[in-house]
Amino acid sequence: MLEEVLRQVQDGRLSVEDAAKQLATFENLGFAKVDHHRKRRQGFPEIVYGEGKSAEQIIGIAKALQAQNHEVLITRVSREKADQIRIVCSDYQYDSVARLLFWKHADNRESKLNGYVAVVAAGTSDLAVAEEAAVTAEVLGSSVRRFYDVGVAGIHRLLHHAEEIQQAAVSVVVAGMEGALPSVVGGLVAHPVIAVPTSVGYGANFNGLSALLTMLNSCASGISVVNIDNGFGGGYNAALIHQLINKGAAGL
Amino acid sequence: MLEEVLRQVQDGRLSVEDAAKQLATFENLGFAKVDHHRKRRQGFPEIVYGEGKSAEQIIGIAKALQAQNHEVLITRVSREKADQIRIVCSDYQYDSVARLLFWKHADNRESKLNGYVAVVAAGTSDLAVAEEAAVTAEVLGSSVRRFYDVGVAGIHRLLHHAEEIQQAAVSVVVAGMEGALPSVVGGLVAHPVIAVPTSVGYGANFNGLSALLTMLNSCASGISVVNIDNGFGGGYNAALIHQLINKGAAGL
Amino acid sequence: MLEEVLRQVQDGRLSVEDAAKQLATFENLGFAKVDHHRKRRQGFPEIVYGEGKSAEQIIGIAKALQAQNHEVLITRVSREKADQIRIVCSDYQYDSVARLLFWKHADNRESKLNGYVAVVAAGTSDLAVAEEAAVTAEVLGSSVRRFYDVGVAGIHRLLHHAEEIQQAAVSVVVAGMEGALPSVVGGLVAHPVIAVPTSVGYGANFNGLSALLTMLNSCASGISVVNIDNGFGGGYNAALIHQLINKGAAGL
Amino acid sequence: MLEEVLRQVQDGRLSVEDAAKQLATFENLGFAKVDHHRKRRQGFPEIVYGEGKSAEQIIGIAKALQAQNHEVLITRVSREKADQIRIVCSDYQYDSVARLLFWKHADNRESKLNGYVAVVAAGTSDLAVAEEAAVTAEVLGSSVRRFYDVGVAGIHRLLHHAEEIQQAAVSVVVAGMEGALPSVVGGLVAHPVIAVPTSVGYGANFNGLSALLTMLNSCASGISVVNIDNGFGGGYNAALIHQLINKGAAGL
Amino acid sequence: MLEEVLRQVQDGRLSVEDAAKQLATFENLGFAKVDHHRKRRQGFPEIVYGEGKSAEQIIGIAKALQAQNHEVLITRVSREKADQIRIVCSDYQYDSVARLLFWKHADNRESKLNGYVAVVAAGTSDLAVAEEAAVTAEVLGSSVRRFYDVGVAGIHRLLHHAEEIQQAAVSVVVAGMEGALPSVVGGLVAHPVIAVPTSVGYGANFNGLSALLTMLNSCASGISVVNIDNGFGGGYNAALIHQLINKGAAGL
Amino acid sequence: MLEEVLRQVQDGRLSVEDAAKQLATFENLGFAKVDHHRKRRQGFPEIVYGEGKSAEQIIGIAKALQAQNHEVLITRVSREKADQIRIVCSDYQYDSVARLLFWKHADNRESKLNGYVAVVAAGTSDLAVAEEAAVTAEVLGSSVRRFYDVGVAGIHRLLHHAEEIQQAAVSVVVAGMEGALPSVVGGLVAHPVIAVPTSVGYGANFNGLSALLTMLNSCASGISVVNIDNGFGGGYNAALIHQLINKGAAGL
Amino acid sequence: MLEEVLRQVQDGRLSVEDAAKQLATFENLGFAKVDHHRKRRQGFPEIVYGEGKSAEQIIGIAKALQAQNHEVLITRVSREKADQIRIVCSDYQYDSVARLLFWKHADNRESKLNGYVAVVAAGTSDLAVAEEAAVTAEVLGSSVRRFYDVGVAGIHRLLHHAEEIQQAAVSVVVAGMEGALPSVVGGLVAHPVIAVPTSVGYGANFNGLSALLTMLNSCASGISVVNIDNGFGGGYNAALIHQLINKGAAGL
Amino acid sequence: MLEEVLRQVQDGRLSVEDAAKQLATFENLGFAKVDHHRKRRQGFPEIVYGEGKSAEQIIGIAKALQAQNHEVLITRVSREKADQIRIVCSDYQYDSVARLLFWKHADNRESKLNGYVAVVAAGTSDLAVAEEAAVTAEVLGSSVRRFYDVGVAGIHRLLHHAEEIQQAAVSVVVAGMEGALPSVVGGLVAHPVIAVPTSVGYGANFNGLSALLTMLNSCASGISVVNIDNGFGGGYNAALIHQLINKGAAGL
Repeated sequence: MLEEVLRQVQDGRLSVEDAAKQLATFENLGFAKVDHHRKRRQGFPEIVYGEGKSAEQIIGIAKALQAQNHEVLITRVSREKADQIRIVCSDYQYDSVARLLFWKHADNRESKLNGYVAVVAAGTSDLAVAEEAAVTAEVLGSSVRRFYDVGVAGIHRLLHHAEEIQQAAVSVVVAGMEGALPSVVGGLVAHPVIAVPTSVGYGANFNGLSALLTMLNSCASGISVVNIDNGFGGGYNAALIHQLINKGAAGL
Repeated sequence: MLEEVLRQVQDGRLSVEDAAKQLATFENLGFAKVDHHRKRRQGFPEIVYGEGKSAEQIIGIAKALQAQNHEVLITRVSREKADQIRIVCSDYQYDSVARLLFWKHADNRESKLNGYVAVVAAGTSDLAVAEEAAVTAEVLGSSVRRFYDVGVAGIHRLLHHAEEIQQAAVSVVVAGMEGALPSVVGGLVAHPVIAVPTSVGYGANFNGLSALLTMLNSCASGISVVNIDNGFGGGYNAALIHQLINKGAAGL
Repeated sequence: MLEEVLRQVQDGRLSVEDAAKQLATFENLGFAKVDHHRKRRQGFPEIVYGEGKSAEQIIGIAKALQAQNHEVLITRVSREKADQIRIVCSDYQYDSVARLLFWKHADNRESKLNGYVAVVAAGTSDLAVAEEAAVTAEVLGSSVRRFYDVGVAGIHRLLHHAEEIQQAAVSVVVAGMEGALPSVVGGLVAHPVIAVPTSVGYGANFNGLSALLTMLNSCASGISVVNIDNGFGGGYNAALIHQLINKGAAGL
Repeated sequence: MLEEVLRQVQDGRLSVEDAAKQLATFENLGFAKVDHHRKRRQGFPEIVYGEGKSAEQIIGIAKALQAQNHEVLITRVSREKADQIRIVCSDYQYDSVARLLFWKHADNRESKLNGYVAVVAAGTSDLAVAEEAAVTAEVLGSSVRRFYDVGVAGIHRLLHHAEEIQQAAVSVVVAGMEGALPSVVGGLVAHPVIAVPTSVGYGANFNGLSALLTMLNSCASGISVVNIDNGFGGGYNAALIHQLINKGAAGL
Repeated sequence: MLEEVLRQVQDGRLSVEDAAKQLATFENLGFAKVDHHRKRRQGFPEIVYGEGKSAEQIIGIAKALQAQNHEVLITRVSREKADQIRIVCSDYQYDSVARLLFWKHADNRESKLNGYVAVVAAGTSDLAVAEEAAVTAEVLGSSVRRFYDVGVAGIHRLLHHAEEIQQAAVSVVVAGMEGALPSVVGGLVAHPVIAVPTSVGYGANFNGLSALLTMLNSCASGISVVNIDNGFGGGYNAALIHQLINKGAAGL
Repeated sequence: MLEEVLRQVQDGRLSVEDAAKQLATFENLGFAKVDHHRKRRQGFPEIVYGEGKSAEQIIGIAKALQAQNHEVLITRVSREKADQIRIVCSDYQYDSVARLLFWKHADNRESKLNGYVAVVAAGTSDLAVAEEAAVTAEVLGSSVRRFYDVGVAGIHRLLHHAEEIQQAAVSVVVAGMEGALPSVVGGLVAHPVIAVPTSVGYGANFNGLSALLTMLNSCASGISVVNIDNGFGGGYNAALIHQLINKGAAGL
Repeated sequence: MLEEVLRQVQDGRLSVEDAAKQLATFENLGFAKVDHHRKRRQGFPEIVYGEGKSAEQIIGIAKALQAQNHEVLITRVSREKADQIRIVCSDYQYDSVARLLFWKHADNRESKLNGYVAVVAAGTSDLAVAEEAAVTAEVLGSSVRRFYDVGVAGIHRLLHHAEEIQQAAVSVVVAGMEGALPSVVGGLVAHPVIAVPTSVGYGANFNGLSALLTMLNSCASGISVVNIDNGFGGGYNAALIHQLINKGAAGL
Repeated sequence: MLEEVLRQVQDGRLSVEDAAKQLATFENLGFAKVDHHRKRRQGFPEIVYGEGKSAEQIIGIAKALQAQNHEVLITRVSREKADQIRIVCSDYQYDSVARLLFWKHADNRESKLNGYVAVVAAGTSDLAVAEEAAVTAEVLGSSVRRFYDVGVAGIHRLLHHAEEIQQAAVSVVVAGMEGALPSVVGGLVAHPVIAVPTSVGYGANFNGLSALLTMLNSCASGISVVNIDNGFGGGYNAALIHQLINKGAAGL
């Protein structure tokens, strides 16, 4: 294909600019600025992992993204750092439970998608991770319904909400300790379940390993797993699937 | 709500049959036969895990499912067991690489869905797991495109197929050894990536643990992970998402 | 106390034989033959771990136990070894699923205890371990009700049997893969749950480690755990508790 | 059964209220408030896991439970948090070693059960976990005898108390480091032993893993295990068994 | 010291041969044949690890050692390999339980040392490892007393032999499963205990890891540990200490 | 034997007091006070593990031991706690590197044993553990020679001291990181090597696991291992062996 | 740069063929055949991992490589498979210890490089891995000197060869069990040491994990590590460095 | 050889001093001062591991090295400690990101080697480890080019720099999280890749274990691995290889 394009340029059948664009398929893979292509290539703009970055570094990246009219989402930001950043970025919102800092277009405040993402959490101690998932999905354009404190040790609490969870587009299920909740939810619904193990627990929990293994070994179908405490990953995957379902077959 | 329904029955405003149906939302959660509800509740009929079941047991379950006009899919079936089963179930197909035994309606031979699932595999040794994913997705109604032997150690092999992978509805990415492929694919596409670690490798691979951890820690977004060697899980998740995208927002 | 007994012997107030019996409380701790005291000390006669013992060794031990009118229970016996042993011990029963070989008094065939032990198992692949638990409990004098293939991925299957499980004296809950079943059962019942993880599964199951950790981290109360695949341990604990409940407060 | 009940309502043979009660078997599994059913369903009222809950949240839950005349037990409460809570809940007791905060009916101060629970601990460093077990059992209605600092390295210390331990209804055995104590106790008694590994130790203790594995692999029968440092679990299981033995066969 | 020797050679005060012998202290560190110095340097001749060596290789090494009048001890030899070797080495003894092949001087048949090594084993399944320890110690010159099947679950069996074990020069304590025996023995004796974990057990035993960790974490003093199933290491250490005690302070 | 003693009492051949003493062999196993028998039974008085004990508790135990003229050794004592204790126990010595607090008889200041214990350490970071070993051995009556900073990466440093190490009665070899030093020392000496892994290092050192595994797998003979950072265990074992060698065969 | 090349083609300053060649830098990253570029890009032709490939597959790949005049090296080939392949590829050599099958140009039989690679192995059981390293380096153009059975337990054996190892261009050091050899070699030489852990050993060796961790934690500088049993990796790295040293600074 | 030298001394053909020098080849292995021989034996002077050493200790060692005109490099030095040391060593440089303190000859400020070392890092969080590698290589005489924030999730960022990385003499590739970067770089270059896993990440990253396993299992050739967070090891290996390539074949 390469030589063909070159020959067309040589023959004058193709302008240099158009040839560059055609070869830009390669650019897509390498030579473009990050910002322009991330959203085109990945569906969402670049998300910033805030841990280990200074307030100054974050402000720099955020301003660059915002300058190109992208939404901005920064994860794992402490309240102190958020306060520092918001001196400059005064129109940013900070969610202290989810530890997310973000900026959305005024006209993106309301979700434009049909349906909703269900965020289901086992215990109140899993709240921070669940909120990281929920707020991430909201920032990325989904509306979210939360079902918290519905762990398997009192199965009736979950069953009470079964119907509403079943009608979601996709579920994010967050659990620590034994991490059994995704298996039960997975057996009740006809949509994908993103399982998020948390490090909540003690002893043989081994900082979330127990819940992680439980979820990977789930005997229910339709479950896939992200890293321990990775609420962001759960919310991102859910929002991505939710968005694609809204685009429908036409988007393929 | 329970008392309300009962009162309507008492008042003659509601027939016993209709009341039973209304309360059957609860049946949905407990008292129905497996077969009828699985497909309704979960989107796909029950899949049979063949490992540790005798040919006789499998034949029994398969016949029951087929009797209700469901597709049948049995995983992890050895050639010997498949041959035994096919003496009775002569119209079943067996895929010896994927070790899947299945039966499909004649009118489901062709996928009725728009788009395709990409199954991407790092090395030729990952073939069996990749095929388990691919054939599972096909049996569940998706069409599949395979991209094999495109591991990261020769990144050009993957990039060569980048565009075709990008246009898939969803990707299943299968890799053993260091398991880095899903991270690279995840960075190239705007759809969900289901990562399947395999136990291919030796030494510090620890039977797939290495690839599993790699995938869980991926710095690319939009990746979720299933169990080691769980090609079925990869294919099931992909087919589920593919189906939901085809249904579109109307299905929500 | 020691000197007191000695003084009574010296004074002729106590015969040597009676003094020996009184000091036999210490015998209880050390100097008695195994056979006599095990049943008195532990409630059940010595159980023989069959793995790694030859048929000859087992026959020897069994005959010795039987000679003192004790029930005999030998665990982890292969069919081959069982056949060899039964040439000599022709009145022994062998359960090939549970791999248990045992002999019971004719008048102990029927359980004399009120109530029953519930043995609950997640999948058909957990059957061997569940049967080891069930038959162990039966040999030790309990009657058992079995609830198999009621894993959490189809929670309605379990709920269907909830009432009958709730009325048991004690439950043994057997599960492999993610091992979530004991948590759900534990949340439904008012009696102790002995959780038995099995090595059923693959990949990140790590030969039962996944199920083991799940059970140890259960957020339900009233659950305790035995070793992976230790169906015997599950059945023994259940039978012990069942027996004590039948003895009631008078036994304390 | 569902349709039968409905038909009786239709026929006027059953009032709406009675039908609701009959169908409330299902409530038992799902539609009731937590508080009412936990004690009926599980034998004990809901226990509150205090870790990660604020003083305000705990006060709220405690007040709700107390309002319905239930005992209240909150685990893993620091002295600071306990002091805060007791400003409002001035009649609550706090055990600073066990880190338990609780409220009991005036007429439940004395145990009404025959017999006692033995709490046996290997070393003085295991004291906190042992006390969590002991006080939990006491709050739940058992009387407890403590046998501390009787580790296996000086086996005579344990043997000195053997008889008194043997006469208990059930034992909780707490040990860190090598965790061998439950095996020795398990070989001496005719009642269930709940083994509680602690994280006491260093180096290859791996935060209690060593003691946990020891206990799971015990060659003594009648032992089951709870999570590392889970004194509460040990006490709860013991109190549950103790209570059931007191109810006796009539309770089955 | 080097220059001093050289000067003596230069001065004729020392012959070349004697100088070479004196400098052989350095040979000790590098330039000598293995055979001559091992026994001088290490107290015992070289022991041959038989696993993975062919019968021919073993015969070669054995003949070389024997030629210099050293005892020969080869570990981990299968019966088949032993039979092959003994066609040539017809005066070698083979112990099929310990899987040891060895040759001793006729005048070393009886131990010349005062006292004995105690080899204590928990269960009959630990026999092979215990015998590897016992026979190793015997070949290296100790007399051995065996105390088998004295596991902690029936502590009276061990206590029955306490006095005889206490009078040994050193103990090797072999145990699988929970591996608690060395802790109890360590608390009873005033001599070193070499603890040998075995891989006997299943499930959370993890091939001996459980017993290994137990022994490393022992709260008894005077215990040190060798590798899992390393009966040879246990016997070698015991024989070494036994020999040194017999040499007494004069040997220092 | 029990009945024999009783009969002698009955016959007046044996006084009650003497019978009690004879039966006290059993006391030896159970009914004695800790203090009296530990030194007789174990060779050394009870050592106090200071971690997790208050200054008051330690003072109490120490006074009790000292009252019976025993040496006192308390391990893992922080400087703060040591200072508090020494207000009362003003004649105690504190070693802040080894974190040991101890009291010795004035006439035990000098070792009365022939020979010495070699304490060999790989790096300067292993100093604290090495000193815990060295001072422990000194308090228990040995004289000690220290060989520090002789790790295998500069093998000449070790070889320089080879002769002096070889002449020791026993070696304690302390190493972190890769933990290879005991293997090299073990290959040079004819006496027992007690290997002490330390948690010094980072990354794949896993808090001493690396060094521990290295030492357990040593291909040199005559090595046994204690827990990670267990300098006390190393010193205790060495002093015990050193003492027994000094007693010689007469002590057996 | 892309547009510049295109413009030169348009202007006729550059032929299509030359432009294609210049843009082949990109080909380098994606669109070229594997065979042509691997050797140019990586210094060595593609090596074939034989495990899990059929004789037919291997023959196909080998023929393709050979057709382009590349050396052929296939790893992990069993004797059976090698014999099958050599029916067709009759001029291939097979090394049954190293399990390598390879073909070299007649004029590459002798190494054309100055200096040599040292392959150093601890024990005779490490031979297969050491030979995989040695033969790999030879096939890739290095000459190799072997130093086997020089483990650290007899350090003099290694020191005897120190000078010759020091003069090598690079060392591959192979060791199982405790894996300490690379640390000692690393401390003796002024060139890179590639450490190869082997799975030789038992018990707490954990299939090579012990040796792997030892090598990663080495306190000697200049050591880097490859996977367990990865003799090929060791040989490849060594040959690569050896080749680059021979090219010298001119090659940079 | 030993006797030959001795005979020459005896014959007067060799002076004592010269003989000592010849035999000093052995000194090289044992009896020399560290400082003199390290640089001769290892190519670089001794590097000081600063962690756990006091400022005073470091000053002492540094002065000694400097006195002999060696470069000085101290790793893992905190800013506080560096400030203290620089009061005395005022001409030392401190790099606070790499936490390295060093002193170089004025005439070694510029690298005298051809070519450069590429230090490639995946994310900004890996910066500290990458800088430790880069500055180490620079202090040891290499020039370094840095390629940071080129992780595999945006593969185009890496490919953009491919050519410049390919032209390096050797690469150090630093990555945390999934650690996939070395595999991709390894597939692009014809020189050795030293892979450095970092502990950057969370959850199933397990403090760098994930990245470590990934790198050990890399399917690309020419990769070897150092310990987690061991930037120093990466830089040292790279500088060593870079130096040897510059010496070329003449140095062999």
